[in-house]
Amino acid sequence: MKIENVCILGAGTLGTRVGLQSAISGYNVSIYDISQKALDGSFQVMKKILHQLKKSDLITEDASVEALAKIHFTMDSKKAVANADLISESVTEEVDIKKKVWKQFGEIAPEKTIFTTNTSYMLASMFAEDSGRPSKFCAFHFHDVFYSRVVDIMPHPGTDESLIPILEDFGRSINQVPVFVKKENPGYIFNSMLLALIGAAGRLLTNEIAEIEAIDKSWMVNFHMPMGPFGILDSIGLDTAWHVTHNRRDSASQAFAAKLKKYIDQGKLGEKTGEGFYTYPNPSYKDPDFIK
Amino acid sequence: MKIENVCILGAGTLGTRVGLQSAISGYNVSIYDISQKALDGSFQVMKKILHQLKKSDLITEDASVEALAKIHFTMDSKKAVANADLISESVTEEVDIKKKVWKQFGEIAPEKTIFTTNTSYMLASMFAEDSGRPSKFCAFHFHDVFYSRVVDIMPHPGTDESLIPILEDFGRSINQVPVFVKKENPGYIFNSMLLALIGAAGRLLTNEIAEIEAIDKSWMVNFHMPMGPFGILDSIGLDTAWHVTHNRRDSASQAFAAKLKKYIDQGKLGEKTGEGFYTYPNPSYKDPDFIK
Ligand SMILES: NC(=O)c1ccc[n+]([C@@H]2O[C@H](COP(=O)([O-])OP(=O)(O)OC[C@H]3O[C@@H](n4cnc5c(N)ncnc54)[C@H](O)[C@@H]3O)[C@@H](O)[C@H]2O)c1
Ligand SMILES: NC(=O)c1ccc[n+]([C@@H]2O[C@H](COP(=O)([O-])OP(=O)(O)OC[C@H]3O[C@@H](n4cnc5c(N)ncnc54)[C@H](O)[C@@H]3O)[C@@H](O)[C@H]2O)c1
Repeated sequence: MKIENVCILGAGTLGTRVGLQSAISGYNVSIYDISQKALDGSFQVMKKILHQLKKSDLITEDASVEALAKIHFTMDSKKAVANADLISESVTEEVDIKKKVWKQFGEIAPEKTIFTTNTSYMLASMFAEDSGRPSKFCAFHFHDVFYSRVVDIMPHPGTDESLIPILEDFGRSINQVPVFVKKENPGYIFNSMLLALIGAAGRLLTNEIAEIEAIDKSWMVNFHMPMGPFGILDSIGLDTAWHVTHNRRDSASQAFAAKLKKYIDQGKLGEKTGEGFYTYPNPSYKDPDFIK
Repeated sequence: MKIENVCILGAGTLGTRVGLQSAISGYNVSIYDISQKALDGSFQVMKKILHQLKKSDLITEDASVEALAKIHFTMDSKKAVANADLISESVTEEVDIKKKVWKQFGEIAPEKTIFTTNTSYMLASMFAEDSGRPSKFCAFHFHDVFYSRVVDIMPHPGTDESLIPILEDFGRSINQVPVFVKKENPGYIFNSMLLALIGAAGRLLTNEIAEIEAIDKSWMVNFHMPMGPFGILDSIGLDTAWHVTHNRRDSASQAFAAKLKKYIDQGKLGEKTGEGFYTYPNPSYKDPDFIK
């Protein structure tokens, strides 16, 4: 099966990025959202990302104009999905919203359409049935598309196996590195490991073993990385991190969730609010003297 | 207090590296071991490391000759420690050996000597008393000295606080990044986080969520790292990893320890035996096609 038309559900952070990369890679893209504001914002973010890519010589001016021309923004669900070979769903991470959206699109999508969800912490099996076509349904999970290029392919027990190679090829064609997850696992592969790392950093902090800076420095210097776990938390958002941590019932996670809550209650959600563990736009960990 | 003379106990992997870097940084270094073979091997390894550093333009031929001239290898404990301002102990990771060595050097070291241990998984408080001078005793823990340049400074409850800034300055002077660990913690900072990452990778494998290559690929691609957790395990040595994992009593660690044991029983200890999770010298993860 040849994929030509991609339909993105949800014009937020991830929908925007998956849609843009698909267009850059030559696909026709329709982006659907229930909010016109979200669609307008998505277009603005795309222009910003293209500007960055041009500055880094990763795309030419011509190719960037061509990419934008391949993208169609709409609040009309039928138009959005009319000729879709593949849906990549990136709507808000709430089970009821995802269930509703998949019921809606299961009813109107063409027979041929492959259904994929980009959920980060839920499982395809939680809403595959809602789509009415569970065998056509698979988790296809991106990270940030441009810097972190892994795309997880994680079938649920009812997924038709023939989807896997199609998704692998499609993933590669949009400049991602496909990775196969043999059975359903919350957090896929990378996020499971990242959460373990963040949990360990959280324990070092809440057990008063070391300060935030010492913890980040250790990671950055030994692994030659541009940020450590607390810098990463600031970029993920402390609210997102709190949700995930708070849902784990062990005492270490609860202690760290309580710590995160203190920051959140002060409006410190990380990079997006200008302050989290560090202050932005010039966090101390970006200072070359930080790792001396 | 000015440190001029450094005494290294144990001429193995780490003693060799700490001794060499100290000499490169201008200190007089004596290296003590109970095995002449270890001392000879240490000298050979130093020459290899210097060769690598020269190839990477990190040291000149003159400076490398000068460094070697500053190092004195000996099996005579009294000579080794005669004028030492600081001892860095890197003998075999066994509590009885460390206790014995510290009793021995506590009796013969000059009054001025600062005592430091490089133990990876034990605590200074387990042998500080044996030295007879617990207040002069502190964990000062390296990683690999040349690529991973963090040095942990981790006092035990009886450490005299005035040692901390001296060790910080000394650490910086030998091209390390000192990191303060506020209280004793097995695994310090970095190793605690690394073990959490490795534990998560182990769970993904033993729970049959993903294959080794998919796990490593996820880490490498998303974080732009030269290896993933199983590549790291191969470089640490599966035997070392088994010891640490086996000592943790939770079922996930036990399952992963059992997996490691299967490799070990086949003589696959990692890079040093030519095979572990990957085969060496050309493991598949170093192939540019690996992350496609
Ligand atoms: N942000 C990340 O780093 C990241 C990474 C990988 C995967 N994801 C996943 O991608 C999905 C979206 O995350 P995000 O960060 O882009 O969220 P976001 O809040 O930025 O965007 C969600 C979008 O969904 C839209 N939406 C809500 N209800 C809708 C509906 N009924 N129909 C159509 N659109 C609707 C919202 O208007 C919004 O524009 C989530 O499942 C998340 O777990 C996020
Ligand atoms: N290998 C690493 O990556 C690493 C990293 C950080 C810290 N460490 C720590 O450094 C220490 C040494 O580890 P290694 O990997 O260099 O071990 P190694 O086995 O390579 O070297 C140990 C050396 O100690 C010598 N030794 C044994 N008993 C002795 C004694 N009574 N007196 C003097 N020397 C004696 C041995 O002959 C050997 O040369 C351990 O505590 C380890 O936890 C190791």
